Amino acid sequence: MIIVGGPASNNIDLEIARIMNIPQITLEYKTFPDGESYIRYPVEKVKLSKETVVIVQSLYPPQDKHFLELLLAISTAKDLGAEEVVAVVPYLAYARQDKRFRAGEAISVNVILKSIEFAGADRFITIDIHKEESLKVLSIPYKNLTAMKELAKYLAERNYENPVILAPDRGAISLAKDIANILNTEYDYIIKVRDKITGEVRAEAKTLDIKDKTVIIVDDIISTGGTMALAARCSLASGAKTVVAVCTHALLVGNALDRLRESGVSDIIATNSVPSPVSKVSVASVVAEYLQSII
Amino acid sequence: MIIVGGPASNNIDLEIARIMNIPQITLEYKTFPDGESYIRYPVEKVKLSKETVVIVQSLYPPQDKHFLELLLAISTAKDLGAEEVVAVVPYLAYARQDKRFRAGEAISVNVILKSIEFAGADRFITIDIHKEESLKVLSIPYKNLTAMKELAKYLAERNYENPVILAPDRGAISLAKDIANILNTEYDYIIKVRDKITGEVRAEAKTLDIKDKTVIIVDDIISTGGTMALAARCSLASGAKTVVAVCTHALLVGNALDRLRESGVSDIIATNSVPSPVSKVSVASVVAEYLQSII
Repeated sequence: MIIVGGPASNNIDLEIARIMNIPQITLEYKTFPDGESYIRYPVEKVKLSKETVVIVQSLYPPQDKHFLELLLAISTAKDLGAEEVVAVVPYLAYARQDKRFRAGEAISVNVILKSIEFAGADRFITIDIHKEESLKVLSIPYKNLTAMKELAKYLAERNYENPVILAPDRGAISLAKDIANILNTEYDYIIKVRDKITGEVRAEAKTLDIKDKTVIIVDDIISTGGTMALAARCSLASGAKTVVAVCTHALLVGNALDRLRESGVSDIIATNSVPSPVSKVSVASVVAEYLQSII
Repeated sequence: MIIVGGPASNNIDLEIARIMNIPQITLEYKTFPDGESYIRYPVEKVKLSKETVVIVQSLYPPQDKHFLELLLAISTAKDLGAEEVVAVVPYLAYARQDKRFRAGEAISVNVILKSIEFAGADRFITIDIHKEESLKVLSIPYKNLTAMKELAKYLAERNYENPVILAPDRGAISLAKDIANILNTEYDYIIKVRDKITGEVRAEAKTLDIKDKTVIIVDDIISTGGTMALAARCSLASGAKTVVAVCTHALLVGNALDRLRESGVSDIIATNSVPSPVSKVSVASVVAEYLQSII
């Protein structure tokens, strides 16, 4: 097994190789003056022939460029004789366009996943995909890993006072549950409530009393920060003492960080599936552990 | 047959539909705040079911975004019941990475073409591809059209004095020949000559005397303009009266236009396969004529 770092591996490949104590190479890459991407395997350093080649390439922005680089890397590994190509995509872009919200729309995540398969991937690994069912479109073996254990470990070391875990909506409840189980705390999800008198929409924990608690809000993705900021604001309005925002994939589009801080979030914690100022937890050990199990 | 304009159709779709007098729709598209692309067929306007759907999407920069949009458009047309999907890609990005110039490199054009096929295209049409052999990787019917007839017509109307056609290198000689045949002029290609005394590298027409001629230099792509500027400068040094630069795909990266004008080029003429200030000739009629022949 050889670990290959793509242009958007965010050094996760290096850490995986170190943990597993196996060879690693970094793809050469550049962008031509007209914007075309280029990748090359440093074949003078390593032979791929008959090897299991694990390509680590996340799909954070610019996601279309990173997607094409991934297709190039997979296809070329096969050309160079790799026996099995494993695509490790810590953050899978387009995972939220997982159905036709309106007739006529593209189901983009299907196109991304099938293209990766058609390019020659024999196995697909991602982390905390928006909806696990999306992976069913693949005909190759796949695995959706979770970073919740690693995030929980990081949270445990912080020793927050009276922590409770909230998902900002019902879709993320399994993430909240995972962390709550490890921290041995209560968990809940946030529902939107329309005030019968003022008509104002508020968000609050469905059943849990969060007064004076440290509310840890967990989601798969923080993009513009809107969902998380609303959840934080409402948690504080309901008497939470402190709000901590946790996610796997911190896209942090535009002024998302400012937005979160202004909403009263005191700490933001994410993984390195997307490079960001709050990427404090590595997903490498989770991937390494899984790769070890399939060798 | 329905003509579909993608986000990078440069309105060629509209013109094709008008020439052929058949229905046309424009894809809805947008970019999400995190940079993800979105496309939608306006299904309330047209049914794709059992239709031949011709998607027009060029791959000019940002090429990776336009490539993904094309995959989304093809795949979704199939999902929506299209019987046959024809991908019309006036400018095919990545066509110059058509072999491993160094061991270990990706052959990017293969990945682009196979991805288009795997997404569901039943037929592929492009214009003046860098190397026609690249298309052999496809298992679906394909056609490489040429814009040389249209460009020659435009040149004929200019009534240049004593025109001769030059290709800037041997690879583009067939383009020069096409134009020369229509304009009934001589043609040649430029070779690089190293001065035996000074060691200086010059470029000159292989055999043709270009003194006092209007030299029309023809290439498939003008990217940074370097090749064309060198050819122009050398033509003028060899006594050419005027130099006209002609190409199908005017990428014009960075200050390419300035570079060309500084080299002494007096006129630049390209097609609309890539939008540019010199896109004076439309490829729509060439595509429409071919589509007519396969209906």
